[in-house]
Amino acid sequence: MTYFTEVDFQHMQHALSLAERGSHSTWPNPRVGCVIAHGNCVVGEGWHRRAGGPHAEVFALRQAGALAKGATAYVTLEPCSHIGRTGACHQALIESGVSRVIVALEDPFKQVNGQGIAALRGAGVEVKVGLMREAASELNRGFLSSIQRQRPWVQLKMGMSLDGRTAMSNGRSQWITGPKARADVQQWRARSAAIITGSGTVLGDDPLLTVRQLSSPEAVAPLRVVLDSAARVPASAQVFNSSAPSLHVVRHDTPLPANQTTEVLRVDGDIYGLDLHELLSQLSQRGLHDVMVEAGPTLAGAFLKAGLVDEVLVYMAPKLLGDLARPLVHMPELVHLKQALDFTLFDVTQLGQDLRLRLRPAQVAGAA
Amino acid sequence: MTYFTEVDFQHMQHALSLAERGSHSTWPNPRVGCVIAHGNCVVGEGWHRRAGGPHAEVFALRQAGALAKGATAYVTLEPCSHIGRTGACHQALIESGVSRVIVALEDPFKQVNGQGIAALRGAGVEVKVGLMREAASELNRGFLSSIQRQRPWVQLKMGMSLDGRTAMSNGRSQWITGPKARADVQQWRARSAAIITGSGTVLGDDPLLTVRQLSSPEAVAPLRVVLDSAARVPASAQVFNSSAPSLHVVRHDTPLPANQTTEVLRVDGDIYGLDLHELLSQLSQRGLHDVMVEAGPTLAGAFLKAGLVDEVLVYMAPKLLGDLARPLVHMPELVHLKQALDFTLFDVTQLGQDLRLRLRPAQVAGAA
Repeated sequence: MTYFTEVDFQHMQHALSLAERGSHSTWPNPRVGCVIAHGNCVVGEGWHRRAGGPHAEVFALRQAGALAKGATAYVTLEPCSHIGRTGACHQALIESGVSRVIVALEDPFKQVNGQGIAALRGAGVEVKVGLMREAASELNRGFLSSIQRQRPWVQLKMGMSLDGRTAMSNGRSQWITGPKARADVQQWRARSAAIITGSGTVLGDDPLLTVRQLSSPEAVAPLRVVLDSAARVPASAQVFNSSAPSLHVVRHDTPLPANQTTEVLRVDGDIYGLDLHELLSQLSQRGLHDVMVEAGPTLAGAFLKAGLVDEVLVYMAPKLLGDLARPLVHMPELVHLKQALDFTLFDVTQLGQDLRLRLRPAQVAGAA
Repeated sequence: MTYFTEVDFQHMQHALSLAERGSHSTWPNPRVGCVIAHGNCVVGEGWHRRAGGPHAEVFALRQAGALAKGATAYVTLEPCSHIGRTGACHQALIESGVSRVIVALEDPFKQVNGQGIAALRGAGVEVKVGLMREAASELNRGFLSSIQRQRPWVQLKMGMSLDGRTAMSNGRSQWITGPKARADVQQWRARSAAIITGSGTVLGDDPLLTVRQLSSPEAVAPLRVVLDSAARVPASAQVFNSSAPSLHVVRHDTPLPANQTTEVLRVDGDIYGLDLHELLSQLSQRGLHDVMVEAGPTLAGAFLKAGLVDEVLVYMAPKLLGDLARPLVHMPELVHLKQALDFTLFDVTQLGQDLRLRLRPAQVAGAA
């Protein structure tokens, strides 16, 4: 049994909040923070900013300098043991003279996977693992999902009225929710490596699907992924403009228009749509670990039905649109109530007049 | 300008909480509480329990006895000036020797309407009015509505899934929400003088619409009001059983079955339904000041469309039922989003896995 002190918790909490600062930019790398301290006293801190740049430990050790000797390093993810673009962190930690390393979470990435911890211990550094493991996992839910499930962590975003309607029957839906809710959506988009939408949404609303204002110079604009099995979306659609990268996903056998300039990804599919499992596997291989789906009822329903939604993010405006307005999700007809998709509501936040709800699929006994 | 002290606020808050104890039983009378105090020290307290029984002031004065002399009386509603079934309260207050009366709210009832306050002042008692007026108005929102609008205060209760669905397309809807939400509904029913439902709900679900367990011996079971313009609901329906009183509302020209035993109310109507304004006016005249509508999408939509809903009480289960399931409210097709019914969300409470939302119609500029 490993015991941690209150001071340990404080420093790891701080390291997690440092890691969080990289949440708009580290893609495809994980978010990592590091604090180096003697007792209460912090002598170095850092976080990973962008792939190709120094790791969190390097920033923290640079700041600590000679003060690292005999200190404790708090890292939110196991230090890397492979010499990548920036050198192995376990080596830098050993050379700095830190006497103890506290790790929140093992890195399951196959080139690390315990070897970072083993190397530190082999060099005589005391290592403790598991402090705030749950928060550290949550921070890198996408990175972990790609390694463990070979698919990204999928957040489904929906905006609706009190009665679960997304637009009037004529399709008008702009401004159902207020400015605070819309600003909040921007934050979630910025945390995503990709925004997935469908041809129906693009043809109907012609959205930009960009992050209006990136939070830092390092921030990476999310890839706009348009699912368009029959290649109906024209090159002139805003989602294909040059303000952010785009990916045009079509069915493997669909001919493309002559003037196609956007990068194309071909995946399997049938007349009902694309193979979402294959799509997500492909995105994961590209290092797109956190994706957000912003789509109409058909594509939203397809992701849900396939069991590919990890979190539902709903913005609810206190309005009634009535039963002739557009529904939230298309789903097959239910015969028994137990066939309904069950969720656990874990966050309710009022944003201006609107309500933001976050839900995750309810745990089913025996499910993975 | 009238100033109140912190002690005044405390006593009036206490008087309001006493009044609240009568919320399941005072119908058709208002809920009233009274505290008699010397400074911090309470010497008498009381609340109105049931029509025909003593008023709040009488209970409080009995408890205070000779200690009432020179004390301050805090009453949540202007003391009555008319000699009803239980004698006029202003007279009892004067005779008790209280030197000061603090009133939260004037009683607009035509037999009081300022005369209680005037009589106290005429007898040399100092009277201050308006302490916690808003809370006192809220407590008797139904009573005030009947006097000021000649209709009850109407609460529309709905249970739904995350996507605004009340039942599967086959009509199965039992247990969409969990036990905590269902227990909460019982509390709101108990506060209502009447529960209004429609023939569709009765024919489909055969609900009892009773309060399972009345909160006190004085509690009055809400009247079950069944809107059934064409008299399709049989006498065997559970809502007409003897466990609580019922009222069968039919269109003025509808013949009744021979075995009708439930009391009948005839109101105007056409093939689209009953005249809800006339219905509510009739209920108000019967002293039914707080009513709750528990109905299907058609009747709920009709109340909403007629602008007759004062509060929407929604229980939302974190489930998705899909677009083939039953909608929350039938409403005419909207052409512009500004035609949507706008609400202000003022209470969000988690009840087990479910969420309870309370909303009131958004204030429209220029509206009454």
